[in-house]
Amino acid sequence: MTTDYTSMWKDLGLDLTAHDALLGVLGQAYGDIYQSQKNRPSGMGYFDFVVSEVHGLRVKELMDAKAQGRKVIGSYCVFVPEEITLAVEAIHVGLCSGADFAMDEVEKYLPRNTCALIKSAMGFKLAKVCPYLECADMVVGENTCDGKKKAYEVMGSMMDNLYVMDLPQVKSSEGKALLKAEFLRYKDAAETLTGKTIDVTALKQGIALVNNKRKAMARLATLRHNASAPISGLDSLLANQIFFFDDPVRFTDSVNALCDELEKRIEKNVSVADENTPRILISGCPMAVPNWKLPAIVESSGAVIVGEESCVGERGCRNLVDDSADDVDGLIDALVDRYLAIDCAIFTPNTERTDHIKEMAQASKADGVIQYTLNFCQPYAMETMPIENELEATGLPTLRIETDYSQEDMGQLQTRVEAFVELLK
Amino acid sequence: MTTDYTSMWKDLGLDLTAHDALLGVLGQAYGDIYQSQKNRPSGMGYFDFVVSEVHGLRVKELMDAKAQGRKVIGSYCVFVPEEITLAVEAIHVGLCSGADFAMDEVEKYLPRNTCALIKSAMGFKLAKVCPYLECADMVVGENTCDGKKKAYEVMGSMMDNLYVMDLPQVKSSEGKALLKAEFLRYKDAAETLTGKTIDVTALKQGIALVNNKRKAMARLATLRHNASAPISGLDSLLANQIFFFDDPVRFTDSVNALCDELEKRIEKNVSVADENTPRILISGCPMAVPNWKLPAIVESSGAVIVGEESCVGERGCRNLVDDSADDVDGLIDALVDRYLAIDCAIFTPNTERTDHIKEMAQASKADGVIQYTLNFCQPYAMETMPIENELEATGLPTLRIETDYSQEDMGQLQTRVEAFVELLK
Repeated sequence: MTTDYTSMWKDLGLDLTAHDALLGVLGQAYGDIYQSQKNRPSGMGYFDFVVSEVHGLRVKELMDAKAQGRKVIGSYCVFVPEEITLAVEAIHVGLCSGADFAMDEVEKYLPRNTCALIKSAMGFKLAKVCPYLECADMVVGENTCDGKKKAYEVMGSMMDNLYVMDLPQVKSSEGKALLKAEFLRYKDAAETLTGKTIDVTALKQGIALVNNKRKAMARLATLRHNASAPISGLDSLLANQIFFFDDPVRFTDSVNALCDELEKRIEKNVSVADENTPRILISGCPMAVPNWKLPAIVESSGAVIVGEESCVGERGCRNLVDDSADDVDGLIDALVDRYLAIDCAIFTPNTERTDHIKEMAQASKADGVIQYTLNFCQPYAMETMPIENELEATGLPTLRIETDYSQEDMGQLQTRVEAFVELLK
Repeated sequence: MTTDYTSMWKDLGLDLTAHDALLGVLGQAYGDIYQSQKNRPSGMGYFDFVVSEVHGLRVKELMDAKAQGRKVIGSYCVFVPEEITLAVEAIHVGLCSGADFAMDEVEKYLPRNTCALIKSAMGFKLAKVCPYLECADMVVGENTCDGKKKAYEVMGSMMDNLYVMDLPQVKSSEGKALLKAEFLRYKDAAETLTGKTIDVTALKQGIALVNNKRKAMARLATLRHNASAPISGLDSLLANQIFFFDDPVRFTDSVNALCDELEKRIEKNVSVADENTPRILISGCPMAVPNWKLPAIVESSGAVIVGEESCVGERGCRNLVDDSADDVDGLIDALVDRYLAIDCAIFTPNTERTDHIKEMAQASKADGVIQYTLNFCQPYAMETMPIENELEATGLPTLRIETDYSQEDMGQLQTRVEAFVELLK
């Protein structure tokens, strides 16, 4: 980082010693995993900079915005509509949940058999090491899986600004009505927080900003379909991760600039991988910063990742919101339609997810699919076996990986992934 | 059993060898655990008979009823309204999910980290050893926890008569509307299955039958509050288990006859436990037949169980349905009110459950509470620590037990329970 942010972190109430340790580990991991890659697009320089300033410059921007009266809303899930947040001129940020922190403390509140992502979210709170969480004016939880639903009950006692959004389990007319009621309730809460009222213009503007981000990500996803592999899976994942907390306009511009470069790379056949490198689609649980464990193993095992069927990936950012309605209610309906199309494993039935994995595998010319599940994530774990059967019936080899954020199983995972990659050659 | 039911089981498609093995184990366990108890009320003779005929006479009754054109509806959860089933003159039976069966087969379909109850339900299907499941005309699943919600997707491919009921996660107005819509959908499904139409009289009759069962169980629960401990927890649990599959009128009469006897026992100070025997409330996951593992350990460790805060227990059978409405819609509303009051851990928030545990502990004069959780049951596991904190703050000692249906940890559990009982003396 170019600036000393210590006083800002101190003002936010961070535990400076623990936070320094976190940044040290993060920097080390980033150097080892990212900066050791060869032939990266120069457009990744922007994303490298964002990571180098991950708890610095971006947090300072939020603090400056707060000083000017804007509000910050933090969330843990792709179901919280950023469009509404932007319509009240607030800033929407994804919150830290990608690394183990204060696990001993966490296990005083949550069962050991809880997924790493949920434990991490609580660990960052208990250890006071997430500046985004500490500067948020409102934190939005959501009733997705049982684990998160019940963990928010506990986290509610640790912060006074937690708001929980309910979600349906079935895409029925009642389920849709519930989601609409919850989006309207969130709109009210955002309006109350900011003192602003959402009109058509403001909501259309919010929708346009997020649609543009999504369009840029779709462009990146499509460029990765090219047989020449113009960018690594690790770098693409990073863009997907930064999607959640960077300034939306700057982020969109940076992804589009990267895509311009990738188009040129494709023309010139510039690649990050040799011809005939096995192409792998990753499918399953989200990978929040700095959870680069599995992709690092895959890409150091001689394969290239060509897509992420994940909340931090195509499941989270595909599909645009129809902005043609001319009143707020109509735009809210359009938001509901877009978000209800997310094929998250919390829904039942969720056969459209299998269809989407097949489509992604075909479009990206994947040679195999790795199903990635966090230990104790029941919804995704439960979908793993039926999906494996369906994919293998189409001749697509699959590998199931169940892990957490620890480094203990690295050797074992490396061995299993290498064997899978060998199989695809 | 007094009769040879082999041909009936064969006609139902049961695997006779596996089924014989199951009945052998069940009979052995029942003998060891139940019939070794001292000073049992003679009214338990009826329940002993029901267990001795568990897959025999009761199944024959169902087959005879089917031969006369009645339908059988099976369910796995207290949220499925038996009142509606009875209103179409169908028979409502709880389905087998209390013992490990065909676990190797089950783990080809479900993750190993799935709770024993869900694995058991699938195991009974795969092994073809549950005559209730095989004779059911319709099987009703429900979107309660993530595990069940997703397991029904898989089980749907194993049977052609699975119907899944959606459930809310929050007791909001939308949640209530969802439950009402689902009860109306279930009413339609039951009407279609049977060709009958539910009118006020039929629904009131269904409500009366189930209310009477619940009243009898409430009477039993209240008699157990008496300091003299007129009945064991094991015997009371058995009544709670048989609640789910016996004929409702005969069951109600039998429980009331047992209660008459218990009243006399109380007058005469006839007890199953010495004075000053520690009194324990069990709270948590349901115990389906033949899951008697923990209560057997508790009561062989010198304590008496005075209540079950469980679906198979007070959580499942308390609260009556108001039958005062004079139209079907009003009665459905009353059903919704009664079922939405269930304080299952799938709801968020669910603070009323903690309140109810405190009330039960006080009413039953419990000296301590054992929180019983099936491994990998996230909703109940997640509530365990907050409840422990609340109970211990009121001076009530608690013990957390997390286990499954295997016998492997019996010794360890016995040691922990004995130490807890010693603490309460």
